[in-house]
Amino acid sequence: MVWALALILSLTSMVEESSESEKSYYKREKWCNKLFIEDRFFSYTLKELRLLTLILAESALETIPKNLWRHPAVKRYSKKHRKPPQLIVLDRSYHHAAMRTLSESDKRGRPDIVHFVLLEALGSPLNKERLLQVYVHTLNNHVISVKPETRLPRNYSRFVGLMEQLFKLGRAPPNGKALLKLESKTLSQLLSEINPTYVVGFSTAGAPYTIEEVTSRLSNEEKPVVIIGGFPHGHFSAVTLQLVDKLVHIDSEMLEASTVTSRVIYEYECAISLPMKRLKR
Amino acid sequence: MVWALALILSLTSMVEESSESEKSYYKREKWCNKLFIEDRFFSYTLKELRLLTLILAESALETIPKNLWRHPAVKRYSKKHRKPPQLIVLDRSYHHAAMRTLSESDKRGRPDIVHFVLLEALGSPLNKERLLQVYVHTLNNHVISVKPETRLPRNYSRFVGLMEQLFKLGRAPPNGKALLKLESKTLSQLLSEINPTYVVGFSTAGAPYTIEEVTSRLSNEEKPVVIIGGFPHGHFSAVTLQLVDKLVHIDSEMLEASTVTSRVIYEYECAISLPMKRLKR
Repeated sequence: MVWALALILSLTSMVEESSESEKSYYKREKWCNKLFIEDRFFSYTLKELRLLTLILAESALETIPKNLWRHPAVKRYSKKHRKPPQLIVLDRSYHHAAMRTLSESDKRGRPDIVHFVLLEALGSPLNKERLLQVYVHTLNNHVISVKPETRLPRNYSRFVGLMEQLFKLGRAPPNGKALLKLESKTLSQLLSEINPTYVVGFSTAGAPYTIEEVTSRLSNEEKPVVIIGGFPHGHFSAVTLQLVDKLVHIDSEMLEASTVTSRVIYEYECAISLPMKRLKR
Repeated sequence: MVWALALILSLTSMVEESSESEKSYYKREKWCNKLFIEDRFFSYTLKELRLLTLILAESALETIPKNLWRHPAVKRYSKKHRKPPQLIVLDRSYHHAAMRTLSESDKRGRPDIVHFVLLEALGSPLNKERLLQVYVHTLNNHVISVKPETRLPRNYSRFVGLMEQLFKLGRAPPNGKALLKLESKTLSQLLSEINPTYVVGFSTAGAPYTIEEVTSRLSNEEKPVVIIGGFPHGHFSAVTLQLVDKLVHIDSEMLEASTVTSRVIYEYECAISLPMKRLKR
C-alpha cells in the first residue's frame, strides 16, 4: 500500500516535472532542442523533435564548364564582370547562347531554383525550431551543407556571388564558423552519411499521394529524408531513383521546386503540430 | 405512376449527365472553369469555384523618389545602367546609402518581396485552375493587376526591368493583351471594386489562428480577400487596418510574405479539396 502510494507520488512528480519542463521548453530558446532530446522524461515527444532532412538533388548549380570558356558570349560576360569563366556560376539568363551545345542543357544553369528553395526552407518555422537540415546536391556531384542559422542574401546577384565564393573556397564565410560548406560528394555518399530510415522523392513519374499522406508517414520515421529535384525540366537520373524508397507525385502537373518545398515543410510542421504549439507561445 | 417514372428517369439522366460532365470537366482544359460556373447543374460545386483574391498590400515597390535623384549613389547607378533615376525601381541592395534620408525607409525598396510572392502565387495549382486573382498594391498607392496566365521572369534583374517598364508605360507587354496593368489606385478603391464579403489581413499584431482555421472560413465566403504585407518591416498603416474584417497572426514570429502566401494558397486549396481532385485526373 505504502509502496503503491510512493509509486503514485513518484509518477505524479515525474508528470509534473515533465509538464513544467515542457512549458519552460516552449518558452526557452531554440538551442534547447538538444537538451530536450537528451532528457529521457520527454521520450513521448520524440516524434515531434525528429529532424527532417531536405535534399535538393541534381540541382542546376555549377560553374561554367570548361568547354564553354572560349564561347564569345561567355568571354563577353567574363570581361564585363571581371571574373575568369571558371569562377562564374552558369546562368541560363546570361549564358543561354553558349549553353546550346551542352549535354543535358535543359537541366542546367538555374541557380535561381536553389536560391528560392533555400530562402523558403530557411525562413520556415520548422527551420527556426532547428528541426530542418537542408543539403543542396548538384548535377556535378557537389554537396552544399547549409547550417540552419544561415541568413542568405535575398538579392539574386548577391546570392550568385556567394555561390561563386563557395565554389572557389569551399566554404562561406571565408573565416570563422562555416555556414555553407561545399564538398565533392555524390547523392549516394550523402545518404550513407545521413543513414535515413525512409527516403521520399518527388517526381511527376511517382505514385499519386497528397502531401498530407506523405508527411504523415515521414513524421513517424526516425530519420526521414525528402528529395526534391533542383532542376527546371526532365526527371531524376536512374542513380537518384535507386536511392529513393518511395517516389510520389503530389499534383497532376509539375510544380516548381520552391512550391513543393514550402508545401512539404508546412505539412510536416502540421504533422508534428508545430503551428498550434508556436501560436500558443 | 407513369409521371413518377418519367420524373425518376429524367432525374437519373440529369445525374448521369452531371457525373459525365464532371468527369469530362476534370479532363478538359482550364478555360472550361467558366463554362462550369455557368452550368446550373453544378451549382452544388460553386463553393469549390469561388475565386480567392490575394492582395499584397503597401508593397515596397516604387521608382526612385524625386528627393533622391541627386544623391551620388543614385547618380552613379543611373549612369552605369544608362537609365534616368525616375525610371529606376528603388532597391535597397543598390540604393541603401541614398535611402537613409527617406521617410519610412524600413518599409521601402524591396522589389524582391513582390517578385517572390508573385512567383509563388502564379505557380500554384489554385492559380492554374484560374481560382486566384492577385493584385499588388504599393506604398505609394499604385495597384498592379496580374492576369493569372502571366509568366513572370524568374530572373530578378529581368523582373525589375519589367517593373520599370510597367511604371513607365502602365502596362506589360507594351502591345497586345495586357498581362500586367498598373494604375494609380488606393487599397480602399481596389476593395470597393472587388466588393469582398470577407477580408482577412495577416499581421503579427492580429489574433492567433491557424491557417487552416482562416482558410476554412474564407472558403465559405462568396468573395474572400486575403491581404498580406509586401514590406520587410513594420506593420500595416491605420488606413489598411480599417479595411480589414479580421486581422490574424499565424505564427509566433514574423513570416516572410512569400511563406504566408504559399501557405495560405495551399490551405485554401485543401479547403476546397483541390489537391485530391487534381491527383485524380
